[in-house]
Amino acid sequence: MRGIGYIIILFFIIEEVCVKKVLVILAPGFEEIEALSPVDILRRAGAHVVTAGTVDGLIEGRNRIRVAPDEDLDAALKDGEFFDMLVLPGGAVGTENLKSDPRVKRLIEIVNAKGAFVTAICAAPTVLSNAGLLDNKRATSHPSVRKELKGAVITDERVVIDGNIITSQGPGTAIEFAFKLVEALFGQEKADEVNRTVLARL
Amino acid sequence: MRGIGYIIILFFIIEEVCVKKVLVILAPGFEEIEALSPVDILRRAGAHVVTAGTVDGLIEGRNRIRVAPDEDLDAALKDGEFFDMLVLPGGAVGTENLKSDPRVKRLIEIVNAKGAFVTAICAAPTVLSNAGLLDNKRATSHPSVRKELKGAVITDERVVIDGNIITSQGPGTAIEFAFKLVEALFGQEKADEVNRTVLARL
Repeated sequence: MRGIGYIIILFFIIEEVCVKKVLVILAPGFEEIEALSPVDILRRAGAHVVTAGTVDGLIEGRNRIRVAPDEDLDAALKDGEFFDMLVLPGGAVGTENLKSDPRVKRLIEIVNAKGAFVTAICAAPTVLSNAGLLDNKRATSHPSVRKELKGAVITDERVVIDGNIITSQGPGTAIEFAFKLVEALFGQEKADEVNRTVLARL
Repeated sequence: MRGIGYIIILFFIIEEVCVKKVLVILAPGFEEIEALSPVDILRRAGAHVVTAGTVDGLIEGRNRIRVAPDEDLDAALKDGEFFDMLVLPGGAVGTENLKSDPRVKRLIEIVNAKGAFVTAICAAPTVLSNAGLLDNKRATSHPSVRKELKGAVITDERVVIDGNIITSQGPGTAIEFAFKLVEALFGQEKADEVNRTVLARL
């Protein structure tokens, strides 16, 4: 019996060390393409992706698509230090809901403090600037909210990487954003491998 | 009271004539980016988009994203003749589930018979070729299933329009596919207007 115990412990250690864990937060009003393209592409790459809802039950996006998250944000917060990457999708209302939730700010701090990737797209980079993460960092966002990116060195690239911060512009850049997240976690070769079946123009 | 009745009837007539109605079928194993990019972009353009599940409850996609459809396929079949466009997302398992559901074949026939748009992406164009819709039509699909596109004039373009049939290749072409669907229903000007906020590279 003890042998089985060791095997289970070994399994958890391997899982912990080898599997890349990504948290995607879904708040009511989230932009569906921006949230789900990263989930889709990162799972194809082998990441362990968890979607966490800021409210109970189904989360309805900006375009009235209702998604069942894998868990709630309280559970995600408990596991905060285990994540290798945090993804914040945009959507105007979704972004306001992210900003007003203190658990989101706490998760950003936890993930950033361990040097893991903190990423946001569309309006959501303003959540990062509000948390002080974009000070003197190169970043981008949807053009309509760039004046709110306090402290950032704003660029107009479709995806911007500066250290552990990755930002992007909108639904139309979401698949390029998703592939950059794969590249950041697993390298260019894995991104190329995934794209041989996905057929994105990167 | 009779006045209110007339207003309600007038409302339904206007809805029927003016609003473009699109049906997106979600079968277990559907490819999430391929299904939800068209829903997102077509709703932004003002289409009345209905997602219909082939089974009860939440529909789980290829990448374990669970979506609550707007209605079930029996309800959609009853309204079959009202749709201006049918969208079949891919995913290997999702496509097999579309093929094995006689209601899907019936809907394809109803929508095609009225000359409305029948569209499919990735592996799903094989559902159309099985139904005989691609005979002597220019079409495309995911490269891995092209040999199954019986009767079609196969091309390698990312989105192919031939009359009322629109086909595309995979998750990485889904946003281009979605914008072609907007263009087909509403024209180029509307597609350009939607893309001013979406920022897709078309």
